[in-house]
Formats: sequence, C-alpha cells, structure tokens
Amino acid sequence: MEELYRIIPDRDRVITENIEDKYLSDTLGRLKGTAAALVFPKSTEEVSAVMRFAYENDIPVTPRGAGTNLVGSTVPHGEGIILDLSLMNRVLEIDEDTLTAVVEPGVVLRDFQALVESKGLFYPPDPGEKTATIGGNIATNAGGMRAVKYGVTRDYVRGLELVLADGRVITAGTKNVKDASGLSLKHLIIGSEGTLAVITKCILKLVPKPERSLSVVVPFADLNAGIAGVLSIIRANANPTAIEFTERSVIELGEKFTGLSFPVAEAGAYIILTFDGRENEVLNSAELVKSVAMKAGALDYITLEDPAKAADIWKVRGCLVKAVEAVSEQEPVDLVVPINRTAEFIRFVHETEVKTGMQMVAFGHAGDGNVHLCIVRGDRTEEQWEKELHEVMTTVYNYAYSLGGLTSGEHGIGIAKRPYFFSATAPENLDVMRSIKTALDAKHILNDHISYLK
Amino acid sequence: MEELYRIIPDRDRVITENIEDKYLSDTLGRLKGTAAALVFPKSTEEVSAVMRFAYENDIPVTPRGAGTNLVGSTVPHGEGIILDLSLMNRVLEIDEDTLTAVVEPGVVLRDFQALVESKGLFYPPDPGEKTATIGGNIATNAGGMRAVKYGVTRDYVRGLELVLADGRVITAGTKNVKDASGLSLKHLIIGSEGTLAVITKCILKLVPKPERSLSVVVPFADLNAGIAGVLSIIRANANPTAIEFTERSVIELGEKFTGLSFPVAEAGAYIILTFDGRENEVLNSAELVKSVAMKAGALDYITLEDPAKAADIWKVRGCLVKAVEAVSEQEPVDLVVPINRTAEFIRFVHETEVKTGMQMVAFGHAGDGNVHLCIVRGDRTEEQWEKELHEVMTTVYNYAYSLGGLTSGEHGIGIAKRPYFFSATAPENLDVMRSIKTALDAKHILNDHISYLK
Repeated sequence: MEELYRIIPDRDRVITENIEDKYLSDTLGRLKGTAAALVFPKSTEEVSAVMRFAYENDIPVTPRGAGTNLVGSTVPHGEGIILDLSLMNRVLEIDEDTLTAVVEPGVVLRDFQALVESKGLFYPPDPGEKTATIGGNIATNAGGMRAVKYGVTRDYVRGLELVLADGRVITAGTKNVKDASGLSLKHLIIGSEGTLAVITKCILKLVPKPERSLSVVVPFADLNAGIAGVLSIIRANANPTAIEFTERSVIELGEKFTGLSFPVAEAGAYIILTFDGRENEVLNSAELVKSVAMKAGALDYITLEDPAKAADIWKVRGCLVKAVEAVSEQEPVDLVVPINRTAEFIRFVHETEVKTGMQMVAFGHAGDGNVHLCIVRGDRTEEQWEKELHEVMTTVYNYAYSLGGLTSGEHGIGIAKRPYFFSATAPENLDVMRSIKTALDAKHILNDHISYLK
Repeated sequence: MEELYRIIPDRDRVITENIEDKYLSDTLGRLKGTAAALVFPKSTEEVSAVMRFAYENDIPVTPRGAGTNLVGSTVPHGEGIILDLSLMNRVLEIDEDTLTAVVEPGVVLRDFQALVESKGLFYPPDPGEKTATIGGNIATNAGGMRAVKYGVTRDYVRGLELVLADGRVITAGTKNVKDASGLSLKHLIIGSEGTLAVITKCILKLVPKPERSLSVVVPFADLNAGIAGVLSIIRANANPTAIEFTERSVIELGEKFTGLSFPVAEAGAYIILTFDGRENEVLNSAELVKSVAMKAGALDYITLEDPAKAADIWKVRGCLVKAVEAVSEQEPVDLVVPINRTAEFIRFVHETEVKTGMQMVAFGHAGDGNVHLCIVRGDRTEEQWEKELHEVMTTVYNYAYSLGGLTSGEHGIGIAKRPYFFSATAPENLDVMRSIKTALDAKHILNDHISYLK
C-alpha cells in the first residue's frame, strides 16, 4: 500500500492503521468489514490513480460517501482500499440558464438543497437521510417522499463523470435534456451501488423552486379505508408532491418519542399529503383532494396552514425509525409493492406479527407502494434474532413478491438484502448483470465480494 | 433457413423470396440492405426460437416495428433475418389501479394513445410519427413535443420482457413505481436500437388524462428575442407541456404547403406553447406565461381557444418536414444543444447556409434544445449531394458539440448518424459500450453490422 502515499501526497488522507469502525460499516454498524487502507482523494486524478493501482494489483475497492446506507453496501472486504469521497465536496457550477448543477460526489444533500433554494431553484429528490452525499444518492438511486410528483434521484441525473475499475475516466451524459445518442451508461451506473465505477462528478437537473408548499393530514377509520383513500387520491390528478401513509398505532410511537400529538386520535390510519407549486395551484389541488378524500370516507381533512403545526406533524412522521430505535435494535426493510397491493401487504404484516410474535412497524410512501418496515429485535438473544429475523424477512419478502413486489425501493441491496434479492431474481437476470459487471470490471475489484454480482 | 418454417408454422409469416423493399430500409428509403428471410413472429416463444436458431448459426438479426425510423436502424445486413414484430400488437392489460398498461411491442402508438384516452388515462410520450410502434419508440427512446413537461419514452417504461441474442427470455422491471433492486437492465435496453435484445412485452406507465389542453402562439421580432423568450418562460415555473420554436421563414414553407396562415406575419419567429391539466391550472399557467412573454418583448400573445384555429396552427407546425419533402429530398438531423445555446446554434446554421449554399430548415423543441434540421438536397447530383451533405453535417455537428451538444435527441444513431456519433464520443465510452454489447450478445448478431457497436 506504499504506492498510495505517492498517489495522495497528504499524510492525513491515507490511513493504513487503526481505521475507525465507522469506515468499516454502514450507518447501522451491525455488519463490519476489514480493510488495509482508507484514502480520501480530492480529485478525479487521484481517484483514477488509486483505481489503476488497485486494478493492477487485484486489490478490492469499496467506494463510500457519508456511509449513511442501511444495507451494508459500504462494508469493505479483505485487505482492500476504502475510497472515501467525502472530501470531493465542491459545488462546481450552478447553471441557471440550463437549470443544471455540477457537483462533486461528496456534496451533502442537505447543503446542496439549501444552496440551490437560496438561488430560487429546487433539487427535488428528498430521501429521509439529508446527511447523505449526492454520490451515495446516485449509487442507490435514492427515492424519498417527493417521488410521487417529482420522481427519484435517477430522474435528476443528467450526467456523470466516472472512474472505471481500471482507472480510465469517462463521462456519461451531459447538460442536454434529451439524449438518444448511444447506450445509456449513465442509467446503468445509477443504482449500481458502487459495483461498476466510481462517480467523481455529477451533472444534476434542477427545477424552479415552488412558490408555496402545503401539507394536510387526512384521518381514516382503518387501514383499508386509508389505502382506498390513497388510490382515489392518486386517480384524482391532483398532482400531490408526497402521499405518506401511517397507521395510528405507529403514529403513537412517534407521539411518545416527540411528546407531540396528532389530530383525531380515534383514527385508525392517516394519510399525510404535501402539495407544492404556485399558490393557487396548491390551494386548488388541496381542495380537489379534500372532496375526493371526504367521498372516500375520510374522518376529517386538516389543512396545516400554520407552519409550526405542519412542522410538528412532519416531526412525528420523520422520527418513526428513531422512535423504534429508542426502544430496541431494528432491521429496516424497504420493499415495494404495486400501489394497489399496499393494504393487502400491510394486513399480511399484521397477521405475521401475530403468528410469529415479531413486531414490525410499517409505514411508508403510499403514493408509490414503497413500504418501510422496522423489524423490532426486542429482547431476543443474538442467535434468536438472527434466526427469527431471517425467517420473518423471508416470509414478508415472499409475500411481497407474490404481489408483484420488489426487494428494494430506495435503500438498495448491499449485503443485508442479498439473500432476499436472490430469491426474487431469475438466474438469467443475475447472469446478465454479472456479464455486465465483468464487462466493466473484469477483475471484479469494485465492491464485488459484498454484492450480488460476484 | 428451412428451420424458420418449423419455428413459425404459418407459411405467410416466413418470407425468403422477393422481400419487399420497405423491409430492407427505414422510412426514408435512402439506405437499402439485404436479408435472407423476413419473419413475423406472433409470440415470445417464436421470437425466442428464432433467436436461438440465429445465435446457434451466427445469423445476423434485425428487429423492426413499423420501420418509421429516420437513421437506418432497420436496414438489415448480409444473409440475415428481419424480425418484424408488427403482428405482436395486442394490448394485454390496462391496469387502472396501478396506472400501468402491458402491451406487445408491435402496438401502434396512435392506437394505444386513443385506447388509454378512451379510459380517462394518458400516455404522454408523443413523437411526431404516430404510426410508430411502442417497441420502436422504446428502442430509440423516442421524445416528442410533450417532453418539456412529461419527459420522454424512457420515463414511461416500467418494465420490459426481452429475448436475449441467444434466445433466453428475461424480464427487466415491473409494475412497481420505485426500484433500487439491482442493475437497471431496463434502462440499458431503452434507446439501444435493437442491438442488445428484442423487446417482446412492455409495461408502461400511464397518468390521468388532463382535463383541458390549451395552445398559444407567441410571435417575436426575431430569432434572438424568441429564444430569450423561451428561456424566460422555462424559468417562470409555468409547467408548459410543449415549447416549440420556429422562425417565420420556416413557417412560410408550412403556410404554402397547407394553404393556412399564421398570425402576425411581420414576426421573425414564433414560440408555440401548449398547457394541459385542470381547467384553472391551464388558464393560470397561460396567464403567467403571457406576462413573462410580454415582458420579454413578445409582439403579441394569441390564445387558441377555438379548437379549429389551434388545429390549423399545429397543422402548419406538424407539416414542416413534409413541406420540405414536397420540394426536395432532405436529410433529417435531430441534434441537441443545452437549452441556452439554441439561438447561437441556429445563427450558426444560417451563416453556414450562406457560406455553403446548402439550405437547412431549422425548427424544434425549444423547451429541451432538440433542434431539427432538414438539410435540403435541391437539384444536386447524387455525388454532389453525398459529398456536400457530409461536409455540412460535419460542420453543424462539430459546432453543436462545441456548445456541449449531442448527436441525437430522439431519432437515435443508426447507420446515418454513425460517423457523427463517432466524432463526438470518446474511445473509452465506445469501448465500454462494446464490452456491454459483447456481454449481452457475444456473437454480435443483433443489429450489429449497422451499429456503432461492431
């Protein structure tokens, strides 16, 4: 690893001893890997030189941003190199004429959102974890609540600069809006979890900043009524930004955790919606959804005109994972089902809770069928937990697959979801994916041993 | 080719003699290939069996839909098989709960749009050529006018069933909205022009049908004022469906061809906009754009409330290619530049017309920088035309590239744009694309000899 000191001249950017635990895992810390070196490149040239060295010497490389992922995709392997891109964090350009930005991969989402909003622009992708990096968001095709109206990270990536496994640098995509010019390498890289190339520059699409945003809470008597309400709202062409769904029992965890309270405590389930856009457009949409929701049996329709009140509601919704974690270790699952199968799926989760005694806190992005489950460890021993967790995950994934669902909507596969991805994916698909992996990284050095591509 | 008769039992679906010219070319007919057989499969199983046979025997295969492409991507090669998918034209499902449709690749765009609209739904991709097939649209990632608001074909493909070069059948994608589950084979196939796999089924995203649509014409004094107007409109957050741009001189060709007339004949350029959505939203957007456009120096702002009047305007805009073709053979170019470079590019085209004597009729999708040029042959001899066309295309492509542009926004590369794609594409990118081609089609039998991937 001596060569790394020649590639990266600053001593504090090459670490070969006592690598901190946080670099050997993801944000959950339940899986831990090993590495011979941790490097912090500051330029594409340095990334390229590190990759060339690693490729020539068959050294595994694990790229990472802020390490906020939940599936172990930044857990390094063997005597390899951890390539931390967090120092490549410059916003290189905000181009107001083409509504694009050029950023390095280590730029933190929250900082970037604030910066573009200060210029009257808007970067819509909004996964829950705002301290993630843009590069990490692209590597997992991060989603988030605004996906209903705005789409996911993939939809905001115009172009990428990439360092290939062997150190070659390419660009895929441009500032242009349309592109029918050759195979889309860009789209292949998005969501590939660091297995095909290292992202060193990102050209992002921006939109004008919405003039106004408005949230509403819609309580329903129970799960079924709530999900039926979601489907009616989607069909109403009211263009909501977000459609979140949570059962009352889950909200109660958030209420306890925050000390705040949700309206209409006798409800069984809530839909929380956001609208954004021009003032009159937002108000019209909210009115339209009100009439649809009341017809669909809503118990009330609470418009959160008061920003403090709206902030409280989103605080309760936003704390759910932390509220669970305050009580017990948990395993996050972010599977997807077709939007009209969400109620069935959540009912099955409840039945499974009863049958197995395993608590599963379910909430999610109802507008796109992306259901989050926190599977709660409780006081299980390590051995019990591993066994029962695997059993219950197998059960819920298999049911989701039987409804036409997918392993992950926004977290990715990583190590943690690999067995459940295998069981849902045809051998031919895996075979094609592995051929593509080999085409781009013949020596399989990039994030390989932890992925489904080895 | 005897085997083909065993695979496809109907005699009239396997043609090995006197193959009609239209199957040996694209819609322009200026490039003509050769083939040993033309087959019309009716099922995935038949496509799979044909591909297995072709793969085992190293026979080139050229898939095609309606053959409406403009770049020679359906020109067959050698003693190969033309795989015409136009008989696989069933709409298998319209799922109003998940807002998706499942169709075979040979479904004609126009028929599909009409069908979903009859159910209160909407399939937004709207390339000029409505007799194209959905499979062909996906293979070229077709764009069209509504891309400003709705995006392109890529954005409406949820999933694909594919037959690989060796005959294996895979599915890539599902009805689910979000997907962070493995490499996106679906996105790799979209826009790959029949070079990686044969599309045999398409899961498409639908949206609710807009309640109202409204077009407006905005005349400006000249090119520069018009393009500045476009940029102001894009920044106004008025969410137009389409923003088309045409100079007066070009509109005059359309006026002559149709016998109709455009308003404000003293204008130098026009922007034509469409808005769609809810009634009040459309009217508000149109009002907002009016104030922005008038501030930007528009000569007038003509709202086409009368559907007959609107139809006339779109008839003139829609006939431009035919208006040119009525006078002379033409070569279509659909390059893209960043939206703020459109005026520069069109000015350069005019200078080049003066310098070279080659007429180039320019118009296009101003909202996304996708400029269409009809390069007019006039009375040039075959030899002159070939030479001068190549020279002038080299000149305009190189200028577009210097502005950060791309070879194609929606037509694809095919044979016709291959040299200009090569000159814009780094060897490393071509190398990666070719590795991917080999990973999916080791024998390079699918549309290979005509593509940039051989």
